[in-house]
Amino acid sequence: MTSEQEGFTLKVPVVRDILEANERLAEDNRRTFSKAGLFVINLMSGPGAGKTSLLERTIDGLRSEIRIGVIEGDIQSSYDAERISEKKVQVVQLNTGGACHLDGNMIRSALDAMDLVSLDLLVVENVGNLVCPAEFNMGEDIKAMILSIPEGDDKPLKYPLMFQESRVLLINKIDLLPYVDCDVGKIRERALQLNGGLEIFEISCRTGEGLESWLDWLRQQVHDRKARGDGKEI
Amino acid sequence: MTSEQEGFTLKVPVVRDILEANERLAEDNRRTFSKAGLFVINLMSGPGAGKTSLLERTIDGLRSEIRIGVIEGDIQSSYDAERISEKKVQVVQLNTGGACHLDGNMIRSALDAMDLVSLDLLVVENVGNLVCPAEFNMGEDIKAMILSIPEGDDKPLKYPLMFQESRVLLINKIDLLPYVDCDVGKIRERALQLNGGLEIFEISCRTGEGLESWLDWLRQQVHDRKARGDGKEI
Repeated sequence: MTSEQEGFTLKVPVVRDILEANERLAEDNRRTFSKAGLFVINLMSGPGAGKTSLLERTIDGLRSEIRIGVIEGDIQSSYDAERISEKKVQVVQLNTGGACHLDGNMIRSALDAMDLVSLDLLVVENVGNLVCPAEFNMGEDIKAMILSIPEGDDKPLKYPLMFQESRVLLINKIDLLPYVDCDVGKIRERALQLNGGLEIFEISCRTGEGLESWLDWLRQQVHDRKARGDGKEI
Repeated sequence: MTSEQEGFTLKVPVVRDILEANERLAEDNRRTFSKAGLFVINLMSGPGAGKTSLLERTIDGLRSEIRIGVIEGDIQSSYDAERISEKKVQVVQLNTGGACHLDGNMIRSALDAMDLVSLDLLVVENVGNLVCPAEFNMGEDIKAMILSIPEGDDKPLKYPLMFQESRVLLINKIDLLPYVDCDVGKIRERALQLNGGLEIFEISCRTGEGLESWLDWLRQQVHDRKARGDGKEI
């Protein structure tokens, strides 16, 4: 029993070491992003909530004004990167080989394969997981999360960290509201109780509903980032 | 850089230690389950795929024949255990306090709070996560997973381990098929490529469609488990 319990108590300090090492790598990435004048989003959600679909809509909506690059994170496969590459933007697929989230080190390895100075906005699509990705910074400006209507309105109660860490909550698949038991008002109320500063957008990547507000907000963020200049605030 | 990389290389052996310690605890649990003549299911899925709804339907469908107990795993909250307790069955809520999966040790701590000999079937509802729970045995007879239609037909490609580890795949929310872009044939084909032994059920916990086949299959498993006797095969 003692040795088994040692196996478990070991876990906590080592996880802390990993998180601290990750923070240093995230800071390196942050300086790189800042020098390139990039606005960087860490996009997170559970599996199938619509991260890639949101990316497709966002690229279509902003491509004439904003140069967008994408890092696709998946345990394996390059399915999402192939979808995004059809949009003719810079895209890199990161395969974690089993790991349930992206971290600063993985992002750094992907940056070597990108031409950052020719971009205004970099979106990193994290592994589909409502838990672990929220613990690892990668040097991003903001975390944005998607919760989709079929997942239900109890999710802020059960997965609070991601709601607390995010700057933006996109409530996706609102076209399915007539067919599922989900109260958007409850999602909003429960999410805002966890994080009063959340910017919330109700959208459908399928029908396009609500996307203009998101694109307006994002356009402003990228503009503000440029206006602050390169590397000055680091 | 070296010290940072040490932080990362540390991760692999320690995770292996944890997995090995977990296996020993899972074996302890397996003996406990076997002595009690229990059939035990580790029920896994992404967030909001319908684990608790399936449990409610399963309890309603089998309660006159099979004595069912439930362990509810969540990062925090007791929302699901409250839902299940309305069904008047034994239920214990496990809060992982941040951890993204249940393991053998957590299950053992929950067993102390249960009267196992008065049960035929124990279902453990894991944390909503399509990645990490598949790595940790808890001494269960089978792993069962739910994939819901709105999550999309690409999920076997992107989250293969859970499909490989599971004995049963329940494809839930088939009532939403007319409203989303998802091909059940592709889910079946891709899942069976990963694991040809998967038992697949197409269900809707909302409408009740397809549940009889699942209940018939489960009834047979519990019966077979009883027929094998207590503790004989360990």
